[in-house]
Amino acid sequence: MSFKILKKSKKSKARIGILKTKHGVVKTPIFLPIATKAAIKNLTSEELKDLGAEIILSNTYHLFLRPGEKIIKEIGGLHQFMNWSGPILTDSGGFQVFSLAKIRKVKENGVEFISEIDGQKFFLTPKKAIQIQLDLGSDIIMSFDECVGYPTPKKETEMAVKRTTKWAKIGKDYFEKKIGKRKDRPLIFGIIQGGIYKDLRLKSLKEITALNFDGYAIGGLAVGEPVKEMYKILNYLVPLLPENKPRYLMGIGKPEQIIKAIKIGIDMFDCVIPTREARHGRLYKFKFKNLEILNQNIKFYEEINIKNAKYQKEFQPIDKNCDCYTCKNYSLAYLRHLFMSNEILGLRLATIHNLKFYLDLIKIIRDAIRVA
Amino acid sequence: MSFKILKKSKKSKARIGILKTKHGVVKTPIFLPIATKAAIKNLTSEELKDLGAEIILSNTYHLFLRPGEKIIKEIGGLHQFMNWSGPILTDSGGFQVFSLAKIRKVKENGVEFISEIDGQKFFLTPKKAIQIQLDLGSDIIMSFDECVGYPTPKKETEMAVKRTTKWAKIGKDYFEKKIGKRKDRPLIFGIIQGGIYKDLRLKSLKEITALNFDGYAIGGLAVGEPVKEMYKILNYLVPLLPENKPRYLMGIGKPEQIIKAIKIGIDMFDCVIPTREARHGRLYKFKFKNLEILNQNIKFYEEINIKNAKYQKEFQPIDKNCDCYTCKNYSLAYLRHLFMSNEILGLRLATIHNLKFYLDLIKIIRDAIRVA
Repeated sequence: MSFKILKKSKKSKARIGILKTKHGVVKTPIFLPIATKAAIKNLTSEELKDLGAEIILSNTYHLFLRPGEKIIKEIGGLHQFMNWSGPILTDSGGFQVFSLAKIRKVKENGVEFISEIDGQKFFLTPKKAIQIQLDLGSDIIMSFDECVGYPTPKKETEMAVKRTTKWAKIGKDYFEKKIGKRKDRPLIFGIIQGGIYKDLRLKSLKEITALNFDGYAIGGLAVGEPVKEMYKILNYLVPLLPENKPRYLMGIGKPEQIIKAIKIGIDMFDCVIPTREARHGRLYKFKFKNLEILNQNIKFYEEINIKNAKYQKEFQPIDKNCDCYTCKNYSLAYLRHLFMSNEILGLRLATIHNLKFYLDLIKIIRDAIRVA
Repeated sequence: MSFKILKKSKKSKARIGILKTKHGVVKTPIFLPIATKAAIKNLTSEELKDLGAEIILSNTYHLFLRPGEKIIKEIGGLHQFMNWSGPILTDSGGFQVFSLAKIRKVKENGVEFISEIDGQKFFLTPKKAIQIQLDLGSDIIMSFDECVGYPTPKKETEMAVKRTTKWAKIGKDYFEKKIGKRKDRPLIFGIIQGGIYKDLRLKSLKEITALNFDGYAIGGLAVGEPVKEMYKILNYLVPLLPENKPRYLMGIGKPEQIIKAIKIGIDMFDCVIPTREARHGRLYKFKFKNLEILNQNIKFYEEINIKNAKYQKEFQPIDKNCDCYTCKNYSLAYLRHLFMSNEILGLRLATIHNLKFYLDLIKIIRDAIRVA
């Protein structure tokens, strides 16, 4: 078994586990910083390691387009390419079916995209998505799915669920054939779709879990639907997921959303929020940093707008209790100056801090579950 | 004396020296990376230190505009502000008289600029330029000068020389009055102007050196004139500079230009080339790295265009003999990928390498002078 639950909370459905991959073991709950194009925006892999990141996410679609998975394979795989020795989860390209809706056509056997780079058409199939991820040397391969946005009519969502199951089966079969009895086996996760329709979500869950993946992701959330809708779905869906497999909520979320989802039983998260917010000069700061954080009723952090004039002469770090590189070396005043002067160093220093906030957050949550 | 010559070459006018500043001693010849707005583009001060930078350059004009020298003073000075503990030389704003010609008016007592930030007019005077640099806590203060471009008619150049002398005197007097017998005395350098006119250059040299500065800069070169013209000027000007004071050639230059200027007797350099070229994906690589470098007839480096398709699968670093962070951790293929994908991490990794090239170059030259 690649996943083992070490502790379950008595107060909620939260759990602590370990997930074994071919590049090492990670603890869950876990947050995955996003290196879409084989780079966390502004950061080196060494910086990411220093921050305490254990596993990162990269993207099949984008690396297929550039530099091409064959080049990465030839060089020795994605880990070599980007000098990251920890585990890598690769998204399958299914999210791009949603996010690049304007330049793609969904067909029965896959999705036709028009390349953003040279305008060429190419066809991504469930097999192709797995082959690319195998070539990249991914540790956790995601099944190719059709992610629909919000709102999407039921009929259309139903078709997407059907295709997602069909593609999951094709991809899983191809994966098993290719992997055979390889010792150095990557993990493969299935993705549950179904939009906001309970019967479709349940159908998708039933069909996908029947395929016996190493873990299960819930996709197609945080695509525009009201947040309440998301929690409603998680509340009925997560308890039906196999207990002994890791559960991955794709693309979520804000700090309080992560906490809420962990209490519903989610183990894995990725999200652009910390890095994207950082690039806009919005910084996270803990108001307190203890186990009370699991208590939903307390706002445990604040958001700082670094461009605010009040930081002009503030020679304190963002958070004097934070031991990230930024807080150890630079002041709010300096960060503000960098942002006001459009010095891109500011983006980096902010990104470092926000990622540290998220990685610290997940560690505190783990500690809190341990005693809850 | 703040400057001491340790060795003179027998084969050329090159010399090795040490320059004492209130933030430590630097060896000359020396190259100053440029942190115009209190940041080397893309790099932290710690990275700069790791690269072996000994002294950096920042800018009076830009820091006056943003964040304002009073804020930096209140915070504890520029060193504190940007977390750099080594010496800092600050340019006076005189170069902006040239580079921002469209938004300034030169008057008898100073220069009126229109702020790029808010369109407000402000007046930079020789006293003001010194006061700002004192507030910043600069280690080497530059006199406020009027830098003219190429071509500039003789009459106009003559006026600029006159004003440069007048301003140098006002600034120097103000500096001495402010500094008094302070132990922690910054150095102050005069700047020689005169365009391409020999008589004006000689006049400027005579008048500026009469003011007994701690060092002398040659300004107004590399502003569009033919390179030959620059060497001609250096050849007659440098031998007339006081032997026992450091000589600073402002804004120069390409690797071979630095070598040539050192052989004419220049001690200090700053230039945007390594950082700017890096941002355009042009990387420097030594063809050989030994003392033969002083021999002008050998092309000792090559320029790499990282976007070239031939680096697509090149899993070697830029230079396997380079021990910069970039070369130790990343390949040409990865760097190319970052540039092709517009990942700004690429700019940083390239900047690190190019600065290391320049800093290594200057060290090799020092070694070469030691035995020449």
